[in-house]
Amino acid sequence: MSTRPHGYLSPAAFAALQQASSATISTQLLKRGFRNTFMPGLVALRPDLRLVGYAYTLRYVPMREDLTLNQPLDNRTNQQRIAIEDVGPGDVLVIDARGDVQAATLGNILAERVLLRGAAGIVTDGAFRDLPEFRSMGFPTYARAAHAAVSWLSHYAADRNVPIGCAGVLVMPGDVIVGDAEGVIAIPAQVAEEVALAAAEQEELEVFLLEKIRAGASILTAYPPDAATLQEYEQWRNRRS
Amino acid sequence: MSTRPHGYLSPAAFAALQQASSATISTQLLKRGFRNTFMPGLVALRPDLRLVGYAYTLRYVPMREDLTLNQPLDNRTNQQRIAIEDVGPGDVLVIDARGDVQAATLGNILAERVLLRGAAGIVTDGAFRDLPEFRSMGFPTYARAAHAAVSWLSHYAADRNVPIGCAGVLVMPGDVIVGDAEGVIAIPAQVAEEVALAAAEQEELEVFLLEKIRAGASILTAYPPDAATLQEYEQWRNRRS
Amino acid sequence: MSTRPHGYLSPAAFAALQQASSATISTQLLKRGFRNTFMPGLVALRPDLRLVGYAYTLRYVPMREDLTLNQPLDNRTNQQRIAIEDVGPGDVLVIDARGDVQAATLGNILAERVLLRGAAGIVTDGAFRDLPEFRSMGFPTYARAAHAAVSWLSHYAADRNVPIGCAGVLVMPGDVIVGDAEGVIAIPAQVAEEVALAAAEQEELEVFLLEKIRAGASILTAYPPDAATLQEYEQWRNRRS
Amino acid sequence: MSTRPHGYLSPAAFAALQQASSATISTQLLKRGFRNTFMPGLVALRPDLRLVGYAYTLRYVPMREDLTLNQPLDNRTNQQRIAIEDVGPGDVLVIDARGDVQAATLGNILAERVLLRGAAGIVTDGAFRDLPEFRSMGFPTYARAAHAAVSWLSHYAADRNVPIGCAGVLVMPGDVIVGDAEGVIAIPAQVAEEVALAAAEQEELEVFLLEKIRAGASILTAYPPDAATLQEYEQWRNRRS
Amino acid sequence: MSTRPHGYLSPAAFAALQQASSATISTQLLKRGFRNTFMPGLVALRPDLRLVGYAYTLRYVPMREDLTLNQPLDNRTNQQRIAIEDVGPGDVLVIDARGDVQAATLGNILAERVLLRGAAGIVTDGAFRDLPEFRSMGFPTYARAAHAAVSWLSHYAADRNVPIGCAGVLVMPGDVIVGDAEGVIAIPAQVAEEVALAAAEQEELEVFLLEKIRAGASILTAYPPDAATLQEYEQWRNRRS
Amino acid sequence: MSTRPHGYLSPAAFAALQQASSATISTQLLKRGFRNTFMPGLVALRPDLRLVGYAYTLRYVPMREDLTLNQPLDNRTNQQRIAIEDVGPGDVLVIDARGDVQAATLGNILAERVLLRGAAGIVTDGAFRDLPEFRSMGFPTYARAAHAAVSWLSHYAADRNVPIGCAGVLVMPGDVIVGDAEGVIAIPAQVAEEVALAAAEQEELEVFLLEKIRAGASILTAYPPDAATLQEYEQWRNRRS
Repeated sequence: MSTRPHGYLSPAAFAALQQASSATISTQLLKRGFRNTFMPGLVALRPDLRLVGYAYTLRYVPMREDLTLNQPLDNRTNQQRIAIEDVGPGDVLVIDARGDVQAATLGNILAERVLLRGAAGIVTDGAFRDLPEFRSMGFPTYARAAHAAVSWLSHYAADRNVPIGCAGVLVMPGDVIVGDAEGVIAIPAQVAEEVALAAAEQEELEVFLLEKIRAGASILTAYPPDAATLQEYEQWRNRRS
Repeated sequence: MSTRPHGYLSPAAFAALQQASSATISTQLLKRGFRNTFMPGLVALRPDLRLVGYAYTLRYVPMREDLTLNQPLDNRTNQQRIAIEDVGPGDVLVIDARGDVQAATLGNILAERVLLRGAAGIVTDGAFRDLPEFRSMGFPTYARAAHAAVSWLSHYAADRNVPIGCAGVLVMPGDVIVGDAEGVIAIPAQVAEEVALAAAEQEELEVFLLEKIRAGASILTAYPPDAATLQEYEQWRNRRS
Repeated sequence: MSTRPHGYLSPAAFAALQQASSATISTQLLKRGFRNTFMPGLVALRPDLRLVGYAYTLRYVPMREDLTLNQPLDNRTNQQRIAIEDVGPGDVLVIDARGDVQAATLGNILAERVLLRGAAGIVTDGAFRDLPEFRSMGFPTYARAAHAAVSWLSHYAADRNVPIGCAGVLVMPGDVIVGDAEGVIAIPAQVAEEVALAAAEQEELEVFLLEKIRAGASILTAYPPDAATLQEYEQWRNRRS
Repeated sequence: MSTRPHGYLSPAAFAALQQASSATISTQLLKRGFRNTFMPGLVALRPDLRLVGYAYTLRYVPMREDLTLNQPLDNRTNQQRIAIEDVGPGDVLVIDARGDVQAATLGNILAERVLLRGAAGIVTDGAFRDLPEFRSMGFPTYARAAHAAVSWLSHYAADRNVPIGCAGVLVMPGDVIVGDAEGVIAIPAQVAEEVALAAAEQEELEVFLLEKIRAGASILTAYPPDAATLQEYEQWRNRRS
Repeated sequence: MSTRPHGYLSPAAFAALQQASSATISTQLLKRGFRNTFMPGLVALRPDLRLVGYAYTLRYVPMREDLTLNQPLDNRTNQQRIAIEDVGPGDVLVIDARGDVQAATLGNILAERVLLRGAAGIVTDGAFRDLPEFRSMGFPTYARAAHAAVSWLSHYAADRNVPIGCAGVLVMPGDVIVGDAEGVIAIPAQVAEEVALAAAEQEELEVFLLEKIRAGASILTAYPPDAATLQEYEQWRNRRS
Repeated sequence: MSTRPHGYLSPAAFAALQQASSATISTQLLKRGFRNTFMPGLVALRPDLRLVGYAYTLRYVPMREDLTLNQPLDNRTNQQRIAIEDVGPGDVLVIDARGDVQAATLGNILAERVLLRGAAGIVTDGAFRDLPEFRSMGFPTYARAAHAAVSWLSHYAADRNVPIGCAGVLVMPGDVIVGDAEGVIAIPAQVAEEVALAAAEQEELEVFLLEKIRAGASILTAYPPDAATLQEYEQWRNRRS
């Protein structure tokens, strides 16, 4: 298995991220000054599954015929293939495809191998081929589009585990990647623990506030909550625990 | 409740719009010279529900840090919040987000409040956050995309109930908004009654014509219907009523 | 029925295309030097149905008021209408709408007629109106978007059975069109037979390789398969037949 | 020379179009119900020269390797080459490149031949190669962009003198094409004579109105002109002639 | 003349903005937390002239036939026309056209009137018609594109002096607008004075630093300047004054 | 100076590339199977100057606040700054900005330093700030747009001299970069020598062919040249040398 820095989240934080929505995490990141962390335009192919893991990045550049189409694929030197045989438990394979969806970045057979190796999921800002198959695979994957063509028609895998952009968001190797039915968010490693715990707290409060709203409360007092509402929340929380 | 001009449709017209498709309404508007009334690119989050109501418009402009991020939200002066506590039965909250989907325009908690207040639905040409929650909420909503970030990262609510553009279509406060699984259409107030009634007639004819087509009729006589087909239709309609 | 050159595929090849994925066909076309054959961005409205047939092309140009809005539709001279009454068994109606989705290219009534005439399906790089109806129609259709407006608001049907571009891909009359849940691919007529048969072979191999991967094989030996794996495959295939 | 229907404008109308701006012509077309006649996004490579002529259309579709890259160019069958040796005095070569600027549609050597043959100019909604050379060629040309690659990398010339779309505007063979520093406009043949003459009248009035504005008149009386201003204009015109 | 809040800049600050580049102003705004103030994509039609003034905003929404094409223009009620007769010395007319360049937002005759009334310039995120004329008009103007069609083909002027978005940037009435050959920047009113003065200081330093760089200094010490370089700068500045 | 592999072109080849147009080079690359080498959409800020040199690549990823805005710039660790003090004679600084023009990638002071260090030019698929200054700087530069904001508002320099994409084209460190008024093309290192020499030959032939065309020759015999024309060319060439 790889020596990448991951596994640094406490079990509590990891568990919190299994529950917290990308919307809540986005708010916690914004509070800490991070404005650009959610990857717009990616479709969840298994919206029923949650994605939590550590970024294993793979960077594609535009293909050139001498490097791809006119040369046999060598699994031992091709960076995409090395990545696929290197990812493991806890990893999320995050692919920088420059948003180019004129060919795939991966197909279902390679994705099955990534799944078999224990990775948590795959995120690309490009396309998948065999995309309909991804809807029934047993782990969460995200892409911008479907395209039938093999990756090397548009892409050449340049390197692995370098900083990348994915859907306009910086992803550093080892960043925490969280995905839900809304989409994918990247949490910088150094704030991931505190963001996770703060997100859990925020979500508990929002469960209470949503109850209030559904019971007819006005947002004037309930959202954001005023002092009285917060006091009520404390009591509600005490009763719950 | 608001003093906005709405409720002017007759019960028959209102009922007709509960049935007529946006496609049929588009045709009736085109016959009256209105070419640009359908809002392309919006996704129906409850395609199983029909939307009919009167436009309550909310206009966003690009955010600026002094107005949003660096200033606490005040529910009593923020135009978005005022709108949410002002909409009521019959209203459709229509948000002009300039098509910007780099942040949300609203999340599920505020949407629940809009629902609780009795509004008919929400339409935005921006994004929702917590968008997956909208798929199970009890009223029809339409957006262009999902984005996890709070609205004030990109948007500042400038004013309410002014003419706006939504997905490239003019919406005046009080215009009739109709949505189905195809999308959303805005009917100018002054023609809404007649368009509704004409749409109902057109739909009845098209039920008949579709029967004919399914029975093997050529479009040469059936679509548009020639005189013989129209005569047949009259008989069919008489038999039905 | 039309005199267009079609029906040239052998039953075996036609059957193979009923099974082969657009991804596999794309690979076989790429091997023969065809890089640009898959139509990106089209949505399958019946992803559960397969599309296989011969292209019957219909070309739209931008509308002009004297040709459409200000002139009654004449079914006998309008090229769209002529096409609809001319397509037949084996045909796939492929519409070049220049990617313009500011109006529909067709609605459900005309599509029902195309279905009744026995055509295999419809592909457009524009929009459909009544698009939700297409989701329950009994044949495969593909479009880029939904739009409520009639086609002549944006389009004028210029001619039929000429070479067209559809979603950026050249389609010649009589080319083989295949669609699955991933999207649509156009196979040049002169290679369709061999591509079909080669695709079937490739798919059989991939069934075996996927089994291997799922059983824990590394891609280093299995994908692409090395000599040992290929030998194993031969045995597997012999056992199967 | 070709037998295309052109040369139908009276000398007075032709002369008027040598003076009238595309803005004025657009207004006259709009008065007659034509909304979509100006081609946005095209750059005038000789903004100092006026273009007036009759459309000779050339239609490109997406290339396919068997038709272009893998086959020697035959000047006698290639539709682009036939067009270039067929255009003549009075013609404007108008190319439908589907807005695709990933390769050129023409280079300077072919353009020189078009110039030598006496054509009035060239308009494409694609790219030119050797575009800087077009800035010093002796006739007006318009394109969307520059691209170094030969046309057949992206395009295959399908046919000539059919209706086309160019930059989103319908162009019929024989339509009058006018270009100035603002861009290019297509005038339907059947209204070209009257539009030309009406444009000349409008421009004379606007010369007068601009004088008024520059002398300090308010637009309240001068633009659009009220009765008194129009009377003044009549006197001004009489003095001039 | 209008009662809009403007003229609040000191003569020194106003003079500073006549010299400072939009790049320098952008840096000063960023230092104060304003990230989004420059309007990308606008072309300077008089890049040789500087624009400094106070925003007079004009907001367009999508046209609708009953409000524009099918109704005579009334200079006394049309918000565009009222704006043109209301702007005066110190004003910059800033038009929110939603980035729509499918018609003009203004032509040269109305622009001449704005010039005659003493306004400082015009900025639109839409198009101008007669755009080539703007290149020789005696004041600075900025637009995204040229389009021959009158504004009411796409736009309806909804209101004036409300907050708008222009090219993705918030503009409040009375904000300071500065334009140079690079483009246009909006300075929030409350920081305009200090930004202007700080920009002047920064530019003086950069004159010195550029001299150093041109004399062969490494950026390691010169940009940003280290303590020694800053000391040298102080001496240079003292010698100059 | 750097130890990058460059300087490998023969003087004759280097001189040939000082003359050959990007269009001619594109043709020679296409003959060798390279389809995607020209960078569309880049503007030459000194179209009067030729660019020839070896790629020194600089890769930007999306900024994140902890890496840029909230951290002082350190010239000794910042990859952009290191690149600027590392480039030297023969180098072309090629920046991968992911096509993002929402901030600059470089301004005029840093560009002056690059010039002073002897580099051949700068190419970015992002924006420059102080872009108007680049029009009078003494070396060729290319960008997609102008933006006033500093680079770190959108970009973080991740690494240098790795394979990058620039305007959709693969650029490897050491590739030959050629720019003219049309734009920029990247020549793979291993074919640069032969492409340069072949381009010179092609250009000589085209000088002759253009003379022929201007003298009235039809393209039927002259372009591509038939055997007789080629023989004539040989004589012309012999006379010239």
